Amino acid sequence: MGTLSFASGPSLLPPEVLDLVAHDIKDCRGSGRSVLALPFTSVEFTSILHGAEQSIRQLLQIPDGYHVLFMQGGASSHFSLLPMNLLGNRLQADYVESGLWARRAIAAAKSWCAVNVSARGDRSAMPGPGEWIISRQSAYCHITTNETAEGLQLHDWPQEIGVPLVADMTADLFTRPVPIERFGLVYASAQKNLGAAGLTVVIIREDLLDRAHKGTPPPLNYTRQAAAGSKVNTPPTMAVAVAAHMLSWVARQGGLAAMEARNWRKSEMLYAAIARSRFYSCAAAPQHRSMLNVCFHLPSKELDQLFLHEAESHGLLDLCGHVEIGGIRASLYNAVPQEAVERLVAFMADFETRRG
Amino acid sequence: MGTLSFASGPSLLPPEVLDLVAHDIKDCRGSGRSVLALPFTSVEFTSILHGAEQSIRQLLQIPDGYHVLFMQGGASSHFSLLPMNLLGNRLQADYVESGLWARRAIAAAKSWCAVNVSARGDRSAMPGPGEWIISRQSAYCHITTNETAEGLQLHDWPQEIGVPLVADMTADLFTRPVPIERFGLVYASAQKNLGAAGLTVVIIREDLLDRAHKGTPPPLNYTRQAAAGSKVNTPPTMAVAVAAHMLSWVARQGGLAAMEARNWRKSEMLYAAIARSRFYSCAAAPQHRSMLNVCFHLPSKELDQLFLHEAESHGLLDLCGHVEIGGIRASLYNAVPQEAVERLVAFMADFETRRG
Repeated sequence: MGTLSFASGPSLLPPEVLDLVAHDIKDCRGSGRSVLALPFTSVEFTSILHGAEQSIRQLLQIPDGYHVLFMQGGASSHFSLLPMNLLGNRLQADYVESGLWARRAIAAAKSWCAVNVSARGDRSAMPGPGEWIISRQSAYCHITTNETAEGLQLHDWPQEIGVPLVADMTADLFTRPVPIERFGLVYASAQKNLGAAGLTVVIIREDLLDRAHKGTPPPLNYTRQAAAGSKVNTPPTMAVAVAAHMLSWVARQGGLAAMEARNWRKSEMLYAAIARSRFYSCAAAPQHRSMLNVCFHLPSKELDQLFLHEAESHGLLDLCGHVEIGGIRASLYNAVPQEAVERLVAFMADFETRRG
Repeated sequence: MGTLSFASGPSLLPPEVLDLVAHDIKDCRGSGRSVLALPFTSVEFTSILHGAEQSIRQLLQIPDGYHVLFMQGGASSHFSLLPMNLLGNRLQADYVESGLWARRAIAAAKSWCAVNVSARGDRSAMPGPGEWIISRQSAYCHITTNETAEGLQLHDWPQEIGVPLVADMTADLFTRPVPIERFGLVYASAQKNLGAAGLTVVIIREDLLDRAHKGTPPPLNYTRQAAAGSKVNTPPTMAVAVAAHMLSWVARQGGLAAMEARNWRKSEMLYAAIARSRFYSCAAAPQHRSMLNVCFHLPSKELDQLFLHEAESHGLLDLCGHVEIGGIRASLYNAVPQEAVERLVAFMADFETRRG
C-alpha cells in the first residue's frame, strides 16, 4: 500500500502521466532528445506548446478573441502583474475579498492602485455575485474562485458586471467547465492540476492587451507574450511539456464535465464522513464549500496534530492545513484518485473510534 | 551515432543526470514520490533546495554575507527586476554595452532609471574594466560576462569599481571559477548549465537588500525571497531538483577549474579549426572570444544555410546563429562532450572539401 498525497501543491500526477514524463526525459516524442534539452525554438517544442494550447482551447471551449499564454513562475507574481498589465490609465481596481489568497492579491495590488473591495466574505457567509458592489471606474474586478486555505469555492458564475472580470483560478481551472466568455482574464499556476510548478497559464481577452506599464518585465508582459506566442524568452519548457500531458489526460477522462463529476464524488464522500461524525467539524458553510480543498478540524489542536501524525504513518500525506489557518486539509485535485478518499475516510473512522 | 545538440539553450544534459532525473520522476530519492508531486514545504524538497544551495556555495566559494536565491522564470525578467530591486533612492544605473544581451538589459532598465553607458564595445574591440567610466551616482554597474549572440566573453574580472557590480552570467556561471567577492549580485538562468528552463539563480550581497520598489511582485523581490529562503511561494521545484543534479555532476567532474579547462579544450579545438581554414571565419577578435559560444560564418549566407542543413542530417543539431546575428553558432556548455566538437570539426573539414 503506497503513500497518497493530499497536498495543496505541487499535487499528485496520474501514474500514466508520470510514465510519459519519465519517457520524455530520455526521449521526447521519438526525437531521441530529452525534453529538458529541446531548444524552445525547435519543431518539437513548438509542437508541444501548440498542442497544449489546443487542448486548453478545446477543454474550456474558449471563444475567438482570447490569447492563451504560458508564463514563467507562479500565480502569486500575477497579484502584482495584473495591475501592472491591466490598469492602463485607470487608478483603481475592484477586488472580492473571499479569503487568504484574495487578501494577498489585494495587498500586492495596493502598491499599484486604489483597491475597492466589492464584497467581503468568510467561511460563514459569502456575498453572491449579485451583491457585489463594483465601481465602473475600476480597470477590472478580481475574484478568487477557490480559496484553498479556508476550503471555499465560488459556485455561481457572475453575469456581466460592467468591468472586465479577472479570476485567479489556480486551484480550480481544468477541474470543471468554465464560461470563459464571461471573463476578461483567467489565470492559474500549474502545480495543482497541470503538473509542474513554475508555469502559469493566462487566458486573456484581446481588448485587455496594450495597457501595460512600460516597466513590466517583457517576459511578464501579457501584450508582449501574446505577440510572441509565449516565446519572449525561453519558456519553462519542461513544465509546458508536463502540462500538455496533463491536459491530454483530462481529455481522455472525458473532459471538464467528467472531471467535475469525479471531483464532487470525492469531496462529497469526505464531507459526508465529516457530517456523520461529531468528532470532525468543517467550519465552511455548506453552500460555499470547495470541491477541491476539504478543510476540517478535530475537537482540539492536540488531536489535529495526533491525527496528522498517525495519518502520515498510514501513508496519508500532506494533510496539514494552511500554516495561517491550521487544522486538516485534504486537497482533492484532478489526479487524486477516489481510492485516496476512501482510505482517508476509513482512517478517519478508525481514528475516531480509538481517540474520539 | 546519435544526435548532438549545440543549442544555446535549453542545452544538453549529461546522460547520467538524465538517468537521475528520470528516476526522480517516479521515485525521488527513495521517497516513493515523484519529484513533481513533492510539496515545496516537504522534508524532501527542503533537502534538495538546501543541497543545491550548498553545492553553489562550495563550487563558487561564496564568502559569508551573500544570499543564494532560487527564483522563478528566466534571466530576461531580471533586466527589469534589477532596477526594481536595487535602485532604492538612486535614479541612475551604469551598464557596459557589450552586445545584444547587454542592449536588452539596458532597454528594460531605461523604463526605471537613467542609464549611463560606462563602456561600449563590439566584436572587434571591447574596453577592459580599467577603461570603464562609472558614475558614483549609480545604484550599480551591470555587465554581461558572456554575449551568447556574438560569441564574446569577458576574460578580465573587474577590481573594485566604486559601485556594486552586477553581472548577468546566464551563459557562463558554473563554467569557470568566479571571484564572487568582487560582485554585488550575480544572476544566471538555468537552461544552459543547470538543466531546466524556468529557474534563475541570484547570488546577492546582503547590503543590496531592502531597496526594492514596493510594487515588485513578492516572488520576484530579492529581499522577500532572501527572508523566505526562496519560498515566498511555490518555487519551480522540478527545475531546482534538476539543478541540484547538475551541480553535483560539476563537482564530480572536479569543480569549476576542471570545467573551465574542459570547456577551453572544446572551444580551442573549434577556433583552431576555423583558423586553419580560409572557408570559415570568426568575426570576434581573438582576445574577446567566448569559451562557450563559438560563432562563425561561411563565405556566403547560402553556404551558411547549406552547412546548417547538412550538419543536421549528420546529427549535428541547433548550430544556427542567433536570429538577429545569423551565421553559425556552436554552444559548448558544460555538458557538451569533447566528442561533439570532434564530430563537428570533422564535418566542417568534409564540408569544406566538398563545397569550399
